[in-house]
Amino acid sequence: MSAETAVGQVGAYAAAAHDVFPAYAAAPAAARAGLLESIAAGMESRSEALVEIAAAETHLPPQRLAGEVVRTAYQLRAFAHLVRSGRHLRAVVEHTDPDYPVGGPAPDLRSMNRPVGPVAVFAASNFPFAFSVAGGDTASALAVGCPIIVKAHPGHPRLSEATAEIVCEAVRSHGFAPAVFSMVHGEQAGIRLLQHPAIRAAAFTGSTIGGRALFDVAARRPDPIPFFGEQGSLNPVFVTAEAAHARVDDLATAFVASYTLGNGQLCTKPGLVFVPLGSGFAERAAAGVDGVGPARLLNERIRSGYDAVGETFTEVAGIDVLRPGRADLEEVRPALFRTSMQTFLAHSDALAEERFGPSALVVEYDDPSDLLRAARAVGGTLTATVQASSSTDRGIRELVEELALHAGRLVYNGWPTGVIVSPAMVHGGPYPATTSSGFTSVGARAVERFLRPVAYQGFPDDMLPDALSECRAGDVPREVDLGRLLR
Amino acid sequence: MSAETAVGQVGAYAAAAHDVFPAYAAAPAAARAGLLESIAAGMESRSEALVEIAAAETHLPPQRLAGEVVRTAYQLRAFAHLVRSGRHLRAVVEHTDPDYPVGGPAPDLRSMNRPVGPVAVFAASNFPFAFSVAGGDTASALAVGCPIIVKAHPGHPRLSEATAEIVCEAVRSHGFAPAVFSMVHGEQAGIRLLQHPAIRAAAFTGSTIGGRALFDVAARRPDPIPFFGEQGSLNPVFVTAEAAHARVDDLATAFVASYTLGNGQLCTKPGLVFVPLGSGFAERAAAGVDGVGPARLLNERIRSGYDAVGETFTEVAGIDVLRPGRADLEEVRPALFRTSMQTFLAHSDALAEERFGPSALVVEYDDPSDLLRAARAVGGTLTATVQASSSTDRGIRELVEELALHAGRLVYNGWPTGVIVSPAMVHGGPYPATTSSGFTSVGARAVERFLRPVAYQGFPDDMLPDALSECRAGDVPREVDLGRLLR
Repeated sequence: MSAETAVGQVGAYAAAAHDVFPAYAAAPAAARAGLLESIAAGMESRSEALVEIAAAETHLPPQRLAGEVVRTAYQLRAFAHLVRSGRHLRAVVEHTDPDYPVGGPAPDLRSMNRPVGPVAVFAASNFPFAFSVAGGDTASALAVGCPIIVKAHPGHPRLSEATAEIVCEAVRSHGFAPAVFSMVHGEQAGIRLLQHPAIRAAAFTGSTIGGRALFDVAARRPDPIPFFGEQGSLNPVFVTAEAAHARVDDLATAFVASYTLGNGQLCTKPGLVFVPLGSGFAERAAAGVDGVGPARLLNERIRSGYDAVGETFTEVAGIDVLRPGRADLEEVRPALFRTSMQTFLAHSDALAEERFGPSALVVEYDDPSDLLRAARAVGGTLTATVQASSSTDRGIRELVEELALHAGRLVYNGWPTGVIVSPAMVHGGPYPATTSSGFTSVGARAVERFLRPVAYQGFPDDMLPDALSECRAGDVPREVDLGRLLR
Repeated sequence: MSAETAVGQVGAYAAAAHDVFPAYAAAPAAARAGLLESIAAGMESRSEALVEIAAAETHLPPQRLAGEVVRTAYQLRAFAHLVRSGRHLRAVVEHTDPDYPVGGPAPDLRSMNRPVGPVAVFAASNFPFAFSVAGGDTASALAVGCPIIVKAHPGHPRLSEATAEIVCEAVRSHGFAPAVFSMVHGEQAGIRLLQHPAIRAAAFTGSTIGGRALFDVAARRPDPIPFFGEQGSLNPVFVTAEAAHARVDDLATAFVASYTLGNGQLCTKPGLVFVPLGSGFAERAAAGVDGVGPARLLNERIRSGYDAVGETFTEVAGIDVLRPGRADLEEVRPALFRTSMQTFLAHSDALAEERFGPSALVVEYDDPSDLLRAARAVGGTLTATVQASSSTDRGIRELVEELALHAGRLVYNGWPTGVIVSPAMVHGGPYPATTSSGFTSVGARAVERFLRPVAYQGFPDDMLPDALSECRAGDVPREVDLGRLLR
């Protein structure tokens, strides 16, 4: 079932998605919202069976997977609510303006977001529900009217098929054309999909290497398409001297819990923590690691990457191996390393790369002003965390300002793992965390990846889309005649 | 003064822009708005002198250029108003949510747009004010807190310098660092600029060939940056049989006025018009062309492109030369060609390319249902226009729906030339009209090209940016606690 999809089949899916796009885009928002809610209900009702397949394929604990189903369903419903509200349309109405001061009266002009067309979704390995077949990318594209074709992740093919069945069933039961949702398997199929003229945008969650390769494919098309890649991230944590002084035990314990969560296989895993020299953080964290049992990683590729982490680190002089992260056979234990700020800054190119799996590097600093240089050396990241005692901690404001240049989300006295589904969420950040800092792949604004603005000038009301009409817009929020406030 | 800028100098400008970025971004919105207003006032007060230089360098009529100064000043003030309002920040506040249903309470989470960093602006030839040194790209980047470096267009170097002086003076008089605005000359300088690590985004207005070459440079960086290219566009016009029947004389006259406006050198020039066979439109338009005097084109490159149009067309059998567009010496007359729908569809690859300058192709159709195929053959375009008698004209609704897939702006019974500066404006569209259909380069949303969302999780109020604070947000519009409405 999960054999590589033939090139011809990929093309057939894409062409069919192209054909059904106008009708799907034109369906009432409530119908698309209903589709998302049916997918959510389908996932929930088969949660037990899905979790069983997922656990076997990904080696993630059933409890965590069950929680991920809850989150995935919540996310589908959140996008359903959003499109029902019409907020994502960003409808703007400017009536004829007789006093427009540039070259005579301005015509009636209205604009709104419309779906871009068929979207390719590249599923992730580490969230087999939330960032996979019926995950956030799928939900946001389907919500706004884009048919999608998922490129399944090879790490959970059976789960992908089982999830796809639920989606297809929902598509059918709502009377939409089957081509609104398709799925392909295999790396070459994914590349062909991305090159197909019918595909108008793509979303990806995975590694920097994989993301960049696909980004390049999208950019080199005769007609380039936007490729929204959510890639690798170091998610640095900065502990102030004041915070370490007040609660080093708690911080070390919580840090270990965060970087080993999901066996260190989260996009937001904090792989790097900067702590004051002599605070005892590293020793306490190492002791905490001993309390974490061994666990199996998602797949062989991740396993071999994890095994190589120690080598990368021991090649750099001045890195202590606090815990080597070895285990027997298939399972691994968390690894922990320590170095000085000096060594980190001297070797930041090698040390500031994402390392998937339960490993982390503790960097001990003497001078808090080095933290600014460290933040710059880390560069683009999904999240950056500060652990402080208060907003008067030495250098904390400058540090947060610097981090705001490099991260999509700043966390204060919390931990970056755990990405809330919320209108305020930003799951994005400067390269290499993503392929462009302008988007988020979680939260309400995730739908904007798949929308484009279109303006209507001088149209009779009965030819306008409902959201732009004088009499059919209903509750859709609109900005009206703000342009003339400029004078 | 306009010698090619040395590579070292380009690097120095970019590095300086990087250094001043945080302070400029942190300046109060009112200070940046004041800067824009000073630039606007500076342009207006020196309008006469600027227009004189521009007329000499571009051969555009002084009256048109004076109007462009008015529009440019209006545009600067519109962006000033926008950033004063704080609407562009899209501030979202989600308070701590004890009932968040996925894995326990949700932390306080807030997000807003922040400037991306230094921006490269590639100026256009055809709007030496509105899309050049102090044009819309400059205004939108400076408005939101991005220092900019303009790559001047070689077609108007003296005007570029004179405009840059006004901008620099305003930057100085408002106490901003000089590196907030710099300018470079030369093709290689532009490429180096685009490759410089400090540059975080770029905007361009020009040809498809030039835009695509620069897009590729931006995409091939070690860290790709978004390149917002506004490129070539055919801006097709579709005349229904009913409209032609009712007012063919007026339509032919207005079409000629639109495609010859600015000597046919507007991004929104309608280069293609579909009219019913036997309507007499082509003959009337040809007669109209005879009333348009000869005029000089912007530069030699555009001139030679224009001279080649006739050859391209006469190579395709079945194209009538209604008016050859020849003139004496430096000036050209408008050219007009005619063909059948059959010929157009058979040769659409060659015929559906932008042709700069005052030329247009009249395509005569017999069967209105062919208009859908024609719309698809034209593909991505900034604008698409329908001339109809009413919303019951045969096939008009299907045609508009099809055109909405390909155009950034749809015009009904108007003409595409004349781009209103309005919150509702969309000046963008699918490739090749732009490098991505998701943006507009005119209107309020143009600033979004230079913004990125950033979230703040769990921060004490006194460390939040003003727009996200409970007590310092002032009048900034915010969405508050919409997330919990989802349940």
